[in-house]
Amino acid sequence: MATNGELKRYLEMTPGSRAIFEAGKRYLPGGDTRSSVYWEPYPTVLERGQGFRLWDVDGVERIDFVATMTTLIMGHAHPEVVLALQDQAAKGTAFGAPVEAQYRLGEILCDRIPSLELVRFTNSGTEATLNCIRAARAYTGRTRIAKVEGGYHGTHDVVSVSVRGAQGNGDPRRPPAIASSAGIPQSTVDEVVVIPFNDTDASREVLAEHAGELAAVIVEPVLGGSGMVPADPQYLAMLREVTRDNGIVLIFDEVISMRVARGGAQEHYGITPDMTALGKTIGGGLPVGAFGGKQDIMEQYDPASGPKISHAGTFQGNPMSMVAGVTTMELLTPEVYARLDGLAERLREGVRAVCAEFDIPVQVTGLASLFGVHFTGDPVRTYRDVAASDQALQQQVFWGLMNEGIFAARRLIGCVSMPMEETEIDTYVEALRKVLARR
Amino acid sequence: MATNGELKRYLEMTPGSRAIFEAGKRYLPGGDTRSSVYWEPYPTVLERGQGFRLWDVDGVERIDFVATMTTLIMGHAHPEVVLALQDQAAKGTAFGAPVEAQYRLGEILCDRIPSLELVRFTNSGTEATLNCIRAARAYTGRTRIAKVEGGYHGTHDVVSVSVRGAQGNGDPRRPPAIASSAGIPQSTVDEVVVIPFNDTDASREVLAEHAGELAAVIVEPVLGGSGMVPADPQYLAMLREVTRDNGIVLIFDEVISMRVARGGAQEHYGITPDMTALGKTIGGGLPVGAFGGKQDIMEQYDPASGPKISHAGTFQGNPMSMVAGVTTMELLTPEVYARLDGLAERLREGVRAVCAEFDIPVQVTGLASLFGVHFTGDPVRTYRDVAASDQALQQQVFWGLMNEGIFAARRLIGCVSMPMEETEIDTYVEALRKVLARR
Repeated sequence: MATNGELKRYLEMTPGSRAIFEAGKRYLPGGDTRSSVYWEPYPTVLERGQGFRLWDVDGVERIDFVATMTTLIMGHAHPEVVLALQDQAAKGTAFGAPVEAQYRLGEILCDRIPSLELVRFTNSGTEATLNCIRAARAYTGRTRIAKVEGGYHGTHDVVSVSVRGAQGNGDPRRPPAIASSAGIPQSTVDEVVVIPFNDTDASREVLAEHAGELAAVIVEPVLGGSGMVPADPQYLAMLREVTRDNGIVLIFDEVISMRVARGGAQEHYGITPDMTALGKTIGGGLPVGAFGGKQDIMEQYDPASGPKISHAGTFQGNPMSMVAGVTTMELLTPEVYARLDGLAERLREGVRAVCAEFDIPVQVTGLASLFGVHFTGDPVRTYRDVAASDQALQQQVFWGLMNEGIFAARRLIGCVSMPMEETEIDTYVEALRKVLARR
Repeated sequence: MATNGELKRYLEMTPGSRAIFEAGKRYLPGGDTRSSVYWEPYPTVLERGQGFRLWDVDGVERIDFVATMTTLIMGHAHPEVVLALQDQAAKGTAFGAPVEAQYRLGEILCDRIPSLELVRFTNSGTEATLNCIRAARAYTGRTRIAKVEGGYHGTHDVVSVSVRGAQGNGDPRRPPAIASSAGIPQSTVDEVVVIPFNDTDASREVLAEHAGELAAVIVEPVLGGSGMVPADPQYLAMLREVTRDNGIVLIFDEVISMRVARGGAQEHYGITPDMTALGKTIGGGLPVGAFGGKQDIMEQYDPASGPKISHAGTFQGNPMSMVAGVTTMELLTPEVYARLDGLAERLREGVRAVCAEFDIPVQVTGLASLFGVHFTGDPVRTYRDVAASDQALQQQVFWGLMNEGIFAARRLIGCVSMPMEETEIDTYVEALRKVLARR
């Protein structure tokens, strides 16, 4: 059976990863510390990265089309980032007072991102969306929030609702609010109104019913973890209109979509939210998050005001994350985005062409440097569309790509990075061809 | 007026910090990204750290008695940590799959900390307590939690209750649950039962009333941000007994108190909780958090089980934080703790002696390497005791110490670190003497 062929080869290539992962179960539950990077039968254990290359502990080299869940836009161990980190490590990694680099990174972000009048740093994207929602609640005096079905905004309580697993439940035009993890109180779930991504009319209707009680609407301009599905421009325009008309804070979660353009997806779409959550790319490969937006919303954090909203955190604005972020952001010229767009478009077209060769229905989603591969003949515009695609084939192709030297994500979402040339794109497409041929 | 004397000198010594901080207000609300490291009129902006030394942008050198809110137990830029980070930076800082170092740090933590059968990593202490509470809720099927008045457990919603500002409200034996920040929904506040720290009888009474509905009791064995006040052994023993008898998960927040002994404060007290939240020291100066505990609670995160609790996060277990953590933990031999205890005891005694010279009532709290200075004649055993101390004198002494080359925290809480000798302790005490003499 072809299925077992790919798995068998994966097992043969990764004995070192298996041994370390199995031994690790003595200390980490199931050997894991990140639900997002576990896959069956076990993940590879990684040794080193350089540019677009990754090596696992068995010495297998792969081309990295995930880039640490889209983080490493300039590739692994970029020489300038390495130098900045090595220099900073010798000067100290964390201080009990501000460092100048936090202002420099703040300046870069505020200059580039249309919605950012003021910004603050966090340790993760999770902490960034948490603070966007808190700021919106404090600002509006309301507590309920609306989010899209399939939208991933980190792991704090109020966003752990209707992220995954809710497909098929009820009317797709009125998705239910369902806790996506054990341990989320029903009182928190009840604070959430769920709307269907990319269904402009249905979402407008649901929002109208709750307009007076909503503090915020939070949305990824490109549905990320759930398949790299870009929003329709009119969908985001509707959200902007409804939130403006009803005094609701519109939050864009650009933790992933900051990759789309120098000013984020909000620049690409020409739609400016009230607040933006950031992470991943902006820290240059070190732990980071940030949130920002309108001055009057952000001033609730001004320490001279008490502050109204307290936001402590030992590592926020730490110099390691700040210098890696500044160095990376300064490398991100407009030309970078144009080049990445071209490479990713070549990949998307190549994947479509190869699947056509084998008469395999596929939808390749994505925007700019981001892509998602979904084995289905139906258009992919929502989370439910993604979930309805052929998961068994996706699993096979994932193992196959790993076996062919392509570092992929289990859901076949990914991105291209700056060190790549057309050769690497063509290698991906050729690897896919080999995998599909032996299926 | 003496007040203005210290402030005037602070202003004279820190023009560079002032300029950067003022300019930073264009990008960060009030120039700040961490509520915990802002102080009036503005914080110093730091340039570099080495061992126990810190230099600000004006070139002023100070001895660091805060160690980044107790994080840097081995001091700034420890040579072995610097080497580990410089080496890892060149190999890559974040990957889309596990690295071996995460298992090594997991092993060290599980070996040393009595309660840790399994552990997972987060990006911050905030994310660590969030997951302890989520795991407890999922495990017990209950949603309410109990916390102590003045207990700080990070900045997520359910722990942002009765942290500060609640003193004087109502009966100290039955502290009210009050949101400590704007933007916390009342439905979340209603999930919290507040108990008075170190009041064994009153806490037992309140817990008994809610015993059947509590998922967890969370407590710092040493009340940290609220004054470095150690728990009475019988207080923790009561919490252990009540939680065990009622199927409640006992969580120790050892983000700060992990400094107390090689196995944390739980080893010192000989009381083993069901779960433990970690951060600060265990990452060696890089952003980190961790949580762990009993196997059956932690197995809710086993990916092979679904997992029941999903816990993604791009930077969890990242190799930079892991190698800095492993290197630091390996340096922390039992001898380190004995030495730090001795240095801190010398400091505590010195502060008491100097205050006695000037007839200034003082309580010096702390445990092991941690200390807190409170200007009051009354015993300091609770958050309300801390809040009732002389804040104006504390502010003056803080500025004075900064002027005398001592890097202190505004609340005069702090710690000693390994690079220090008795000379540095005596310098602190002598600086305090000078400040009190000119008050």
